[in-house]
Amino acid sequence: MAASSFFYATFGLCVCLGIMCVVFVSAWNSRWRGGFAWDGTESQFNWHPVLMVTGLLVLYGLAAVLYRIPCTWSQRKQPWKLLHAGLMLAALLLSIGGLTAVFEVHRSLHIPDMYSLHSWVGMCTVVTFACQWLLSLAGFLFPCSPLWFRAGLKPFHVWMGKVVLMLVLASCISGINENLFFVLDGVSAEAYSSLPAEAQFANTLGVLIVAFGVVVFGILSKADWQRPDTHNEEAPLLLREEAI
Amino acid sequence: MAASSFFYATFGLCVCLGIMCVVFVSAWNSRWRGGFAWDGTESQFNWHPVLMVTGLLVLYGLAAVLYRIPCTWSQRKQPWKLLHAGLMLAALLLSIGGLTAVFEVHRSLHIPDMYSLHSWVGMCTVVTFACQWLLSLAGFLFPCSPLWFRAGLKPFHVWMGKVVLMLVLASCISGINENLFFVLDGVSAEAYSSLPAEAQFANTLGVLIVAFGVVVFGILSKADWQRPDTHNEEAPLLLREEAI
Repeated sequence: MAASSFFYATFGLCVCLGIMCVVFVSAWNSRWRGGFAWDGTESQFNWHPVLMVTGLLVLYGLAAVLYRIPCTWSQRKQPWKLLHAGLMLAALLLSIGGLTAVFEVHRSLHIPDMYSLHSWVGMCTVVTFACQWLLSLAGFLFPCSPLWFRAGLKPFHVWMGKVVLMLVLASCISGINENLFFVLDGVSAEAYSSLPAEAQFANTLGVLIVAFGVVVFGILSKADWQRPDTHNEEAPLLLREEAI
Repeated sequence: MAASSFFYATFGLCVCLGIMCVVFVSAWNSRWRGGFAWDGTESQFNWHPVLMVTGLLVLYGLAAVLYRIPCTWSQRKQPWKLLHAGLMLAALLLSIGGLTAVFEVHRSLHIPDMYSLHSWVGMCTVVTFACQWLLSLAGFLFPCSPLWFRAGLKPFHVWMGKVVLMLVLASCISGINENLFFVLDGVSAEAYSSLPAEAQFANTLGVLIVAFGVVVFGILSKADWQRPDTHNEEAPLLLREEAI
């Protein structure tokens, strides 16, 4: 019971940090960057950080820790598996929306694509996430997927989920840093080096993103918080399939 | 034996990637950024990426996977523990050298300190690493440290080691990205957006850093590659202390 309380406190912190990340990235782009539109201007670019932080970081992180909620362990796994896959698909679609926003703005304003290290690492992140989602669909949701394949895929799936989280953090931090150097150029706006209110706010967003990532990684890493595995030789086949 | 061969192949890849990271970061700053000096100019700044990548990433990563080498498992743990702690201390000292380089250059050229998100996350990384090292010194190397404290600290130490690795990746990627936008400004050098040879080379360094981080994380995460733990109730006290 004490362990469960500690989980819910950590999970609550995780949800709060996730909400704060979404609020901060939206407020930054709304308050200081001119808000949102889908018209090929900088206002369309503003969707990029919002969709990436909301989808690739927060929704991804919350979907990743979904199985760890103890009150779901007594229930059938299948509905939670579908919710996990559905939230991950939503995270992937938001990320693709975020990429579309930036590619369209680049085309509209004649800015080259894919030259910065941020763009290289960010694209690696989204492609790795997409491969992970498709492989997991084939392995865990297709009824014809053999049991040995599911069992072998599971530890790789869990590990790759943490790798994607690492890549997401590197992408988000490098992207916010890059954006602040672009917009706080000391000509059209105060210089980043003078640390104006916008810079302090967006840097704080970066710190919140790191904190969210660390808490998600903590929940994923704690062995006591893993859904008990009913995959053993004595369990009936249906139950074993259900477990993975 | 097959599992051991797979470990050594992965460890070999890890060492090769680590060497490539050091070679690439040194070659980038030597070939394109004017080389190295300790005179308060940009040439002193060039030590910053080299010392950070060499210490905080490569030496840290190799020190972290040291216990995983199977041929050491039959030997006493104490010498490997001292080597692990010594390499980590060297990594920490190189990182502090890298910070000193950049702070001195800022003072010399009247550039403000600690305003970018990269600097915030980077400082968090070094401080977290320093705390981890000091706590581990107290917990694992001080003879008076009680057994219950060592046993409780171990899983936290292993987890925190991975967290530092995540922070290192975010710091390195955001730092290289920031530096390239500074130096490839389209005025004193070709623009970053035209992806000149320097940009391609330094972006490739970023990809190598991510690959090294992922391989280190892979070695740390594989349960089969953990040094067998002799910490159990039947083991003599000396052997139990030796294990942690």
